[in-house]
Amino acid sequence: MTVLILTAEQDVTADLVVAELHGRGTPLVRFDPADLPGEASMSAEYVSGDFRGHLSAGGRLLSMDGLRSIWVRRPGASAAHAPNPSAWLTAESAHAFFGMLYSTTARWMNHPQAAAQARLKPWQLRVAHQSGFAVPPTLVTTFPRIARLFAAEHRDIVVKSITGPPPGDPPVSLPTTRVGAGADFESVAAGPTLLQRYISKRADIRLTCVGHELFAARKAATPDQVDGRYGETGHRWEPVEVPERITRAVYGYLRVARLAYGAFDFAEDADGTWWFLECNQGGQFGFVELETRQPIAEAVAGWLASPPPV
Amino acid sequence: MTVLILTAEQDVTADLVVAELHGRGTPLVRFDPADLPGEASMSAEYVSGDFRGHLSAGGRLLSMDGLRSIWVRRPGASAAHAPNPSAWLTAESAHAFFGMLYSTTARWMNHPQAAAQARLKPWQLRVAHQSGFAVPPTLVTTFPRIARLFAAEHRDIVVKSITGPPPGDPPVSLPTTRVGAGADFESVAAGPTLLQRYISKRADIRLTCVGHELFAARKAATPDQVDGRYGETGHRWEPVEVPERITRAVYGYLRVARLAYGAFDFAEDADGTWWFLECNQGGQFGFVELETRQPIAEAVAGWLASPPPV
Repeated sequence: MTVLILTAEQDVTADLVVAELHGRGTPLVRFDPADLPGEASMSAEYVSGDFRGHLSAGGRLLSMDGLRSIWVRRPGASAAHAPNPSAWLTAESAHAFFGMLYSTTARWMNHPQAAAQARLKPWQLRVAHQSGFAVPPTLVTTFPRIARLFAAEHRDIVVKSITGPPPGDPPVSLPTTRVGAGADFESVAAGPTLLQRYISKRADIRLTCVGHELFAARKAATPDQVDGRYGETGHRWEPVEVPERITRAVYGYLRVARLAYGAFDFAEDADGTWWFLECNQGGQFGFVELETRQPIAEAVAGWLASPPPV
Repeated sequence: MTVLILTAEQDVTADLVVAELHGRGTPLVRFDPADLPGEASMSAEYVSGDFRGHLSAGGRLLSMDGLRSIWVRRPGASAAHAPNPSAWLTAESAHAFFGMLYSTTARWMNHPQAAAQARLKPWQLRVAHQSGFAVPPTLVTTFPRIARLFAAEHRDIVVKSITGPPPGDPPVSLPTTRVGAGADFESVAAGPTLLQRYISKRADIRLTCVGHELFAARKAATPDQVDGRYGETGHRWEPVEVPERITRAVYGYLRVARLAYGAFDFAEDADGTWWFLECNQGGQFGFVELETRQPIAEAVAGWLASPPPV
C-alpha cells in the first residue's frame, strides 16, 4: 500500500516525512497537481459499479486501489505547469484529479473539504469554545460603535487579519498588533475586523497533534511581545507536558473539524492558562522538531503508513 | 425563527420560495453577501464560551440566535459590491460572514462545504454507483490510447466538460457532444477529458429531492437528441412516478453527500431504465414547476420553515 504526498517541489517539511517513510520501506509517491496535465497523466474509469484509477508521474504508475493514505502538504494549483494554462483548465484538472482521489478509500491528512472549513477563524473560535478551550474574548465586526465598546470593556486589545496576510508580491507581513482603547475605529466599516483581548503571556505554546499523538512545545516570551512569529527573542522552543484538559479539548476539536492533523497556537498567561489563539490545519512543524527534537515527522509518517483503525 | 436566503437580487427561483414563506407567515431575510461590507453590516462576538452574531441588512437586524435555516441559492461573491473591492477584502469578508453562519445551529440547504464536494463529477459517479444507480460507463483521462480503447469498446460515446461551461463573456455553451469511435483522441493529453457511453434515450428525467420529498418529471426525447438542455423539441415536462429502487438510491446518495437538496438528471432508455447522468446540488427547479405544477417551491419553503427533526 502506497502513500501519496501532494506538495510542491521545494518543501523541506515533506522531505523530513519522505525520509521517515523511506526508512520504514513504505512505498510513496510525491506529486504536485500543478504537473497534471503535462508532466503527469491520469485515468479514471467508472464502469459497471466499479472504479479504477491511475496516476502516472515521474515514470511510475500508481493504482488508486493501492492507495493507503493521502497527505495534503502544500500542493500547487492543478495544471499550473501545463503548456497552455488557463483558469478553465485548472478547474477541469482539479475536478478530474481530486474527484478521482475522493473516489478511493484512502485516509486523508487532511481532507481538502474539512481543511477548507477549518480555515475559517470565527468558526474555529466557536468550535474551540465548545471543545473546552479557554478563548480570549473576540469580536468580528463592521460596526465602529461595537468596536469602541469592545475596546472600552477589554482595554488592552489586538487586531488581526481574519484570513492571513493579504496576497501580493513582495509579500506583506501582517503581525498581530496592539490597539489602545482610544483608537479610531471608524475604518472597521470598510471591512470586517477581528479584535481580541490581549493576553499578557509568559510563553508561546505550539501543540502539534498527529492522529492521537500530541507534541507540545513552549517558548518563553519577552515582556510585552505580541506576535511570537516575528522577531528574535533569544528564547528557544522546549518540549512541555500537555495538561489533561487540553488533551481532551484537542481531541474534541479535531473530531468536530474532521481533521487528522492540527497545529494549535496558545498564549500561556501568568497563571499558566493556555489561551487558544488558532488551529492551523496545515501548520508547519519543522521549526519545532528542529529545536525540540520531538519526533513529529516520524509520527506523520507512522500515521500515513498505518492501516485504518478497526 | 427566521429563514435566511443567500442569493443575488435577480433570482426568480428565490422569488417563488419567498412568496411561499410569506404565505406561511415565516419571517425571512433575503441577503446577498456581495453587499457586505457596504450596504450591510455584521458583528459576531465570541466571549466567555458564548457566541452572539448579528447581520444588519435592508433596515433589519437579524440575530443569529433566531436563525432556523439558511438557503444557499445563488449568492454573489462576498464584498463584490463594496466601495473598494479587492480579492483580499472578499476573502476577509467571506471568512467573517460564513464563519459567523457556521457558528450557528441553523440547518443548511446546502452547506457550502458539502456543496463544494458535491460538484466534483467523478466523485458523483462513484457515490452514484455505491448508492445503487445505473451509471453509464465513464472515463476521465489524459491518455489518448485509453480514450481510443474506451471508444472502440463502447462505440457510441459522448464527450462532456467535467466542471461545466468555460468562463467567459459572452458565455460559451458547451453541450454534450457525440463522438465517433474513429475520432482523433490525441488532444485529451492537453486536459483531462470525460467520455461516457451514449445512452439512446426515449426521455429525459429530472428528479428534484427536497429533504425527503421527491418530484420527478419526464420529457419525451426526439430520436438522436443528445443534450436535453439545448434546442426546442415540442415535448413538455410531465410528472412521473419514482421507481422504488431510485427512491432508495436518491436517499443514499444525499446522505453520503450530506445534501438536503439535489436535482438529479437521468436518461430513460428503451427498457425504461433511468441512467444517472448527474446530481446538481444547486439545480434550478422553476422550469419544472412551471410545466408540471409540482409544488417544489412549497416543499423548499416547508423544509426551510420546519424545526429540525428530533
